[in-house]
Amino acid sequence: MPVSQTDIALAERLAAAAGAAIRPYFRAEHGVEAKDDQSPVTLADRAGEEAIRKLLIAERPMDGIIGEEFGVREGTSNRQWVLDPIDGTRAFIAGRPVFGTLIALLEDGWPVLGIIDQPIIGERWLGVTGRKTLFNGKPASTRICRELKDAILGTTSPALFDDNQLHAFEHLDAKVMSTVLGGDCYNYGCVASGWLDIVVEAGLKLHDFAALVPVIEGAGGRMCDWQGDPLHAGSKGEVIAAGDPARIDDILEAMACEGH
Amino acid sequence: MPVSQTDIALAERLAAAAGAAIRPYFRAEHGVEAKDDQSPVTLADRAGEEAIRKLLIAERPMDGIIGEEFGVREGTSNRQWVLDPIDGTRAFIAGRPVFGTLIALLEDGWPVLGIIDQPIIGERWLGVTGRKTLFNGKPASTRICRELKDAILGTTSPALFDDNQLHAFEHLDAKVMSTVLGGDCYNYGCVASGWLDIVVEAGLKLHDFAALVPVIEGAGGRMCDWQGDPLHAGSKGEVIAAGDPARIDDILEAMACEGH
Repeated sequence: MPVSQTDIALAERLAAAAGAAIRPYFRAEHGVEAKDDQSPVTLADRAGEEAIRKLLIAERPMDGIIGEEFGVREGTSNRQWVLDPIDGTRAFIAGRPVFGTLIALLEDGWPVLGIIDQPIIGERWLGVTGRKTLFNGKPASTRICRELKDAILGTTSPALFDDNQLHAFEHLDAKVMSTVLGGDCYNYGCVASGWLDIVVEAGLKLHDFAALVPVIEGAGGRMCDWQGDPLHAGSKGEVIAAGDPARIDDILEAMACEGH
Repeated sequence: MPVSQTDIALAERLAAAAGAAIRPYFRAEHGVEAKDDQSPVTLADRAGEEAIRKLLIAERPMDGIIGEEFGVREGTSNRQWVLDPIDGTRAFIAGRPVFGTLIALLEDGWPVLGIIDQPIIGERWLGVTGRKTLFNGKPASTRICRELKDAILGTTSPALFDDNQLHAFEHLDAKVMSTVLGGDCYNYGCVASGWLDIVVEAGLKLHDFAALVPVIEGAGGRMCDWQGDPLHAGSKGEVIAAGDPARIDDILEAMACEGH
């Protein structure tokens, strides 16, 4: 069944609940003696996911849940909620308010709703299949990019690529106007809003990319894997986001090298 | 003469004026036909520096000005104001609100006052020699870092290093807990506030680093060049910021390789 207004309202409540749970831990002191599993980011991750799960279990007991922190809860419907309470752990740890909470709804393994929420500065992208993506409640649109040489490219860190992937990325990097590092899920929001043209990443888990697809595509862009195929629950985590769908072939061609 | 409350109040007014001039250009549309010198970031850079210069020329006609956009205005005092209206051009262009306006006051070539201002989310670090650094008006302190293996390291982009510098950086990168990319001047504010432990960069101009020194040192940290020497108007732009001054020797030792 298509995504309803009730689904959208629930998703927004999930994001708000996660944000409220996460905010107290941002820029909180990490006791020198604290173990890693008690670090502020770990506590925030868990608190965020618990807040979302509590609402989902109460209101959508039939739906499955796939969360970064607490794993899989099998459901009995064709729907699954995919959660990453803090995407951009390093940014969070470093006090940089451009991490995000990612919430996706899958139907039969396909992302049909996605939220990228930045709870510190209060920014939210909401994408739903067949609807216009919203940024803080207002329509968001990707921008036209006529040629790769005009493009701004984003990726969180080249250190996250293996050797073949790095090689492919460097081919693309050499053809664009400028590349900006860091950013995590925030970069995809920036593509949806027409501030950034391309994001290329690899090694993403389902909870890292599922929410991004409806956000980018509802804003007029396109997401695919490094073979140009659409992203779904079984994709292996090599992702491309392009604000201008007309550049996808150029991106794939630029990245073409042995192994891809 | 030491930095006075009047100097500090003026510096804060300069930052506020630059922010007001810059904000309208952030996330503004770049007309497809616009030339590079009319891009929003170029217009914002110029508008920001003009706003600062106008105030300085009216109120401090004897002081010199060194600005990224409009060059050097010779003064007749031992003071110079060093301006970088938008540090983090790529972040600005990509719509990421972690660029900063940098304002420094030099006396005899030594930085004695620095401001890192983020005008979109409204965050400001103010550092003055001999005073406690303030973050949004409240005291900011760096944090203790007992060993390099516990440190979070930040750098804007490894692509900004030459081969020797990259080699030295990679030695350090291998010894720390985690490295976060992107960030520009915002990373130094995060060090001053105790969220990040180390920043290492190279190729910085005077307007990129002068403001950072009083901010970091007034928060209890230390800044130096890659030889461990203090930063001043003649430094060549290889900089280290450490929240815990006790780690400077470890950082220099880790980075020691041919050519350094």
